[in-house]
Amino acid sequence: MLAVRFDGSRLQVADQPLPEPPPGEVRIRVHWAGICSTDLEITKGYFGFEGTLGHEFVGTVDAPATSSWHDKRVVSSINFVDSKDQLFHRFGFEHHPGRSVLGILNRDGAMAEYVNLPEENLFKVPEDVSDRQAVFTEPLAAALQIGQQVDLDRIDQACVVGPGRLGILIAACLQRSNIATTVVGRSERSLHLPRKWGLATRQIDAVSQKFPLVVDATGSPAGLQSAISLTEPRGTLVLKSTFAAQNQVDLTPIVVDEIRLLGSRCGPFDKALKVLDSRDLTVEDLIDGEYKLAEAVEAFQHASQSGVRKILLRMQ
Amino acid sequence: MLAVRFDGSRLQVADQPLPEPPPGEVRIRVHWAGICSTDLEITKGYFGFEGTLGHEFVGTVDAPATSSWHDKRVVSSINFVDSKDQLFHRFGFEHHPGRSVLGILNRDGAMAEYVNLPEENLFKVPEDVSDRQAVFTEPLAAALQIGQQVDLDRIDQACVVGPGRLGILIAACLQRSNIATTVVGRSERSLHLPRKWGLATRQIDAVSQKFPLVVDATGSPAGLQSAISLTEPRGTLVLKSTFAAQNQVDLTPIVVDEIRLLGSRCGPFDKALKVLDSRDLTVEDLIDGEYKLAEAVEAFQHASQSGVRKILLRMQ
Repeated sequence: MLAVRFDGSRLQVADQPLPEPPPGEVRIRVHWAGICSTDLEITKGYFGFEGTLGHEFVGTVDAPATSSWHDKRVVSSINFVDSKDQLFHRFGFEHHPGRSVLGILNRDGAMAEYVNLPEENLFKVPEDVSDRQAVFTEPLAAALQIGQQVDLDRIDQACVVGPGRLGILIAACLQRSNIATTVVGRSERSLHLPRKWGLATRQIDAVSQKFPLVVDATGSPAGLQSAISLTEPRGTLVLKSTFAAQNQVDLTPIVVDEIRLLGSRCGPFDKALKVLDSRDLTVEDLIDGEYKLAEAVEAFQHASQSGVRKILLRMQ
Repeated sequence: MLAVRFDGSRLQVADQPLPEPPPGEVRIRVHWAGICSTDLEITKGYFGFEGTLGHEFVGTVDAPATSSWHDKRVVSSINFVDSKDQLFHRFGFEHHPGRSVLGILNRDGAMAEYVNLPEENLFKVPEDVSDRQAVFTEPLAAALQIGQQVDLDRIDQACVVGPGRLGILIAACLQRSNIATTVVGRSERSLHLPRKWGLATRQIDAVSQKFPLVVDATGSPAGLQSAISLTEPRGTLVLKSTFAAQNQVDLTPIVVDEIRLLGSRCGPFDKALKVLDSRDLTVEDLIDGEYKLAEAVEAFQHASQSGVRKILLRMQ
């Protein structure tokens, strides 16, 4: 089968053996995979990952035929823990120190014709959710994670810095929680889609207000610095994107204004699938390009361009 | 009267007019003032402050004789707000955007023979608390602020990075809240006093464990980086010291481990005075030197040396 591989320096589509699922796992025929910022960082060599990329996907369980998941259309959470030890009970899948992470840490990802995954990580995709929508389950779950960490009922206004592929999902989720949400971006063009989605928008230099909840989804030190300056005293700043390198950021306002900075990563797949099933979000609007698996290198180049949101790979 | 002045480039003891208290304020004859890290940063020109330094002090109300505070021994909280407007009700003294801060922002400080302060900021010092103890009220309040921000009842273990003048107070307060607290420092010598106070200690390179609560009281980017690495997934990291400059810090673990980073500044004076009155902490142990007001420049040089904890100035 074909797979999108990174060997530490070069990205390529390579032939791989068809994986046989070990006990407790199933083999999934992948329909679509999405390219996210973490994938782009990996291809710059920042996470030290080598292997098959991809952690956003939708597919159909192909084997074994005896599995209760057989022939089901599924998505999968991306953190895996073998031994359910004390650390598992304390930190769960997401933070177990021995975890593997799909296409990110010690486990081949889903940018391949087939991928093996543990049954315990699978979620059935509701019938009315299309493949192109279901591939957004992982990033949408990541967006919804903020609601798991912050009591959104106590927030009336929020600001999302960075109107990219993740930022716009976060803003839409906050708005859906009855929070008046402003999306802030550098270019006017980047704000068209947020506006179409009914979100308030502002260019970064035109914001004078501060907010009780700010989300940094820029992935850049300059973006984080802006986000800090937009957070009101004793407000919450959610740091959503991992940074490639060390950052020259002035953290003094975090102390002086007693800001709460929250790191935020993976989120609840069940809730994400419910949001997709509700039809509240037209996530397909985020798709800026679709490529065949064989064209993956070109697809990654497209995804790395400024202002581009979601690029999908068709696996079959 | 004499006062310790900073003119933006040079620290000096200079003659100043005796201040007449405006309505609502009293004049305080200062007994002692303490030198803290923020004072040292100010003298490097980082906060843009010019005027009389000093925000840790104890003194006696001297005028007007008609004040109910007259002849009382007092300390004072350090944030001042004139107009009790909507922003005051929302942000309080500590975070009102129009506030002044004693010896730090738009208000002459207490390293002087006399200082004027609003009556509403004053706290009476209990009889059994000595002057040398009372001068620790402000830093002790800052240490106790962590208990205002974090639910300490849910924490069993904590780590304080930086066994300096503030770090050791923080560690003692956490320990006092029944949290097994480890103080981490670079040098063995810096850990003597924490050990004398009954705290567990470790040199920074010898810590293998992670903690649910970590406090960075180092004031250095390297210290913050260590503190991040000592915080367990979904743990809380309190950032207690302001930094002089921009920092080269890798914030990726904050996102990956979903760490909650809390900026923390001024704290409750009433609680600090109660702790001092309880005799639980022998804060005088922190005093590494006492100087006359006229020797303030020398005192600041002493305070800026590595490993030196509290340096006091005798004002009368």
